[in-house]
Amino acid sequence: MSEPSENLDVERNDPGPGDGDPVRDLHVELEDLIVQALDAGDIDRVEGLIEPLHYADVADLLERLTPDDRHVVLGILGDDEDLPEIVSELDETVRDDVIDDLGLASVAAVVRELESDDAVQIVEELEEHEQKQVLDAIPVSDRTLIEESLSFPEDSAGRLMQREVVTVPEFWSVGQTIDFLRESVDDETLDLPEMFYDIFVVSPTHMPVGTIPVSRLLRTKRPVKTTEIMEPEMRIIPVTMDQEDVAFIFRQRDLTSAPVVDDGGRLVGVVTVDDVVDVIHEEVEEDIMRLGGVREDDLYEATMATTWSRFSWLFVNLGTAIVASMVISLFEGTLEEIVAVAILMPIVASMGGNAGTQTMTVTVRALAMKELSATNAMRVVGKEVLVGGINGVLFAILSGVVAWFWFENIGLGLVIAMAMVVNMLVAGIAGTTIPLFLERLGADPAVASSVFLTTITDVVGFAAFLGLAAVFLL
Amino acid sequence: MSEPSENLDVERNDPGPGDGDPVRDLHVELEDLIVQALDAGDIDRVEGLIEPLHYADVADLLERLTPDDRHVVLGILGDDEDLPEIVSELDETVRDDVIDDLGLASVAAVVRELESDDAVQIVEELEEHEQKQVLDAIPVSDRTLIEESLSFPEDSAGRLMQREVVTVPEFWSVGQTIDFLRESVDDETLDLPEMFYDIFVVSPTHMPVGTIPVSRLLRTKRPVKTTEIMEPEMRIIPVTMDQEDVAFIFRQRDLTSAPVVDDGGRLVGVVTVDDVVDVIHEEVEEDIMRLGGVREDDLYEATMATTWSRFSWLFVNLGTAIVASMVISLFEGTLEEIVAVAILMPIVASMGGNAGTQTMTVTVRALAMKELSATNAMRVVGKEVLVGGINGVLFAILSGVVAWFWFENIGLGLVIAMAMVVNMLVAGIAGTTIPLFLERLGADPAVASSVFLTTITDVVGFAAFLGLAAVFLL
Repeated sequence: MSEPSENLDVERNDPGPGDGDPVRDLHVELEDLIVQALDAGDIDRVEGLIEPLHYADVADLLERLTPDDRHVVLGILGDDEDLPEIVSELDETVRDDVIDDLGLASVAAVVRELESDDAVQIVEELEEHEQKQVLDAIPVSDRTLIEESLSFPEDSAGRLMQREVVTVPEFWSVGQTIDFLRESVDDETLDLPEMFYDIFVVSPTHMPVGTIPVSRLLRTKRPVKTTEIMEPEMRIIPVTMDQEDVAFIFRQRDLTSAPVVDDGGRLVGVVTVDDVVDVIHEEVEEDIMRLGGVREDDLYEATMATTWSRFSWLFVNLGTAIVASMVISLFEGTLEEIVAVAILMPIVASMGGNAGTQTMTVTVRALAMKELSATNAMRVVGKEVLVGGINGVLFAILSGVVAWFWFENIGLGLVIAMAMVVNMLVAGIAGTTIPLFLERLGADPAVASSVFLTTITDVVGFAAFLGLAAVFLL
Repeated sequence: MSEPSENLDVERNDPGPGDGDPVRDLHVELEDLIVQALDAGDIDRVEGLIEPLHYADVADLLERLTPDDRHVVLGILGDDEDLPEIVSELDETVRDDVIDDLGLASVAAVVRELESDDAVQIVEELEEHEQKQVLDAIPVSDRTLIEESLSFPEDSAGRLMQREVVTVPEFWSVGQTIDFLRESVDDETLDLPEMFYDIFVVSPTHMPVGTIPVSRLLRTKRPVKTTEIMEPEMRIIPVTMDQEDVAFIFRQRDLTSAPVVDDGGRLVGVVTVDDVVDVIHEEVEEDIMRLGGVREDDLYEATMATTWSRFSWLFVNLGTAIVASMVISLFEGTLEEIVAVAILMPIVASMGGNAGTQTMTVTVRALAMKELSATNAMRVVGKEVLVGGINGVLFAILSGVVAWFWFENIGLGLVIAMAMVVNMLVAGIAGTTIPLFLERLGADPAVASSVFLTTITDVVGFAAFLGLAAVFLL
């Protein structure tokens, strides 16, 4: 027996005074209840608890459940009318699992219900033979749209766009447009989107000539021509444009939707802001993960897949750590003579690595945000070198004093101070120039910057400190 | 003499076949031309080059120019009708400079032209006495709206929302609504937004009872009641909700706008997706910067301000590096006996630091994305420990073999291998539990996680390797 208690409404319309962080807290409570019901095998109760949830929340829940519990919940969701949206909201790794669980027949049913952009996102992740099976099982008109989208490069505007667009010819009036839209509500053959933010005025050859925000259309008197109220200076997106550039334009122009055109300049689709929000997330997450030495967010990935994807980065790192050790081994004599040098050795390298990471983080993000261009690149490098120099002097004094008093050896203090200035300057130079250089080469600065950087700050840190010690203290 | 050449149109409508990365490339060319004209003191040419640009691009340009060039361009922009939008798009640091340059009278003119949410963003950054001066110089109705918004906490929905909202009473029909909107176009006293995505149906006490997407309104016949087509299950935002939670809800629900209510449940404003896109960026940038040990994106900050803000983080780091050195000094005897130990010592610590950073990055982002909850926390920790253990064994073998052959000492190989397993396991545990623990304490996991983490992996790395060496090799 399902128990539709008051608790079920927690996710909806519950602002209430003093409500600190409603979204998260309610999730935790509800999730606990659902997991308890799953553990108890009380399917009716699970169904009752899940039923009132928004599809995006059901997707989150599926992501967090164990594979066994997920299977049970999918069984319950079997004929839920929200299933297409739920599948569409899932994280890629979990979606693969869910698709295996549902079987290709259900996947075809899911794809059929979605708008073309969301449908493509699901189909593009399938194996080739699975794609064929799914596409064969859906109506020809939908299939053609999806197949066309799949013909565009991955991560391009063509994959991102929705094929359903509202277009009007140049000679229509506002009244004609509104009448057309009202009459088309139940016309399945027209394939109009369920919701839209702009309508596009097109030429007889289907080239976009202007865009009209829906709210403006609504506020204009019926006899006015659409061409009179359209925005002729719209930002047109070529179908092959990378999604990262699409996101940049949306953010820059505060757009809610933008027309996408093919090589011939004909309107073929529309990119909407909700998809762009997802792209922004995707791209930034990618940068964060890469800066942290992770290929991609692997939270939901299986243990062995995660282990393997982390291995390659750590392997590169083992190489650079061995290089650093080889540099140290050049100064074996110094280390044998003065043990204090071995003890203090990691400090200079570590400070250089941290200062360099600060600089590199700012530089990598400035490049990603297109804030760093030829106009200001030299100025930014100059500033970072200066920052490195000033902080180098400050930390030279601090570490020099520590070394001097700790080992009662002023020479040791002077050596660590000199090495610190050198390494912090190098950190400032390397932290800016490495990402700039990688960007110039067409590589992603976020992927490889930090491994180059720490190699340099380690090698310079050890070499400067041990080398100066060999010269002045032996 | 202004030179309106064909080049000026580059930013607009230029998809064209094979157009790889139009946004960035064109910027660079145009920026070069503008900087050249500025260097040559050719004001007319600068004006001609800037005039056709979109306001967001002008803002980007101002950010990248030197302060002197910026002053010249601001002089040219003096009476540009886009000035309010340009100022509103600027990075905070640069905006402070620009506001000083323009003077408070111009700032008041700028604020007067903006919609309430953008106006608040500018006013909230001013000093208190400047705020008063600016607010005194704008009309009472605008002033009241801005003052009300300023009364809400920083980074809350109240600051983010736009006060201009389209509301209709419950008894209106679609036709009445459209007529009202058409007639209100030129009515300044109504303070309706220029563009909107949803209209809100409100009760007589101004409580929101439903939302209607504009496109749906447009497609419905005139006699239909608004209550029949409204979405009663809308997501209502309390005015005090943190902007990060607002962004989460928008992303989760694919919203374009959402009603904001006060403590009494009355509709006071609307948050729109363009502001949310900015919040998403702001919040994610904050996380990236903090993970990189930078307080905030300081690209446009002056050198001394940057130096100082980086100093504090480096200072903490010096402390942890000294702690690591103190751990090393405990094993002075071992280092004196076997110099190979000093040479290999950084490898174990470095591998632990990198493995831990991988784990920490995934954990910190999962927390920020609300993907990590009580339901799956233990499973995630368990998985990361397993990943650390497996990679620990793999890298134990690799580093053990390297050490064995390099120093022709199998004992040394065994010692580094054992230390590696220990430190990689610790890295997996620390990388997950530190962010989880900080989150539980109510601290931002992105700020402090990495300093705790590297302290632990350094200390454990050095202690395990040197300790095992002392036990087995002396």
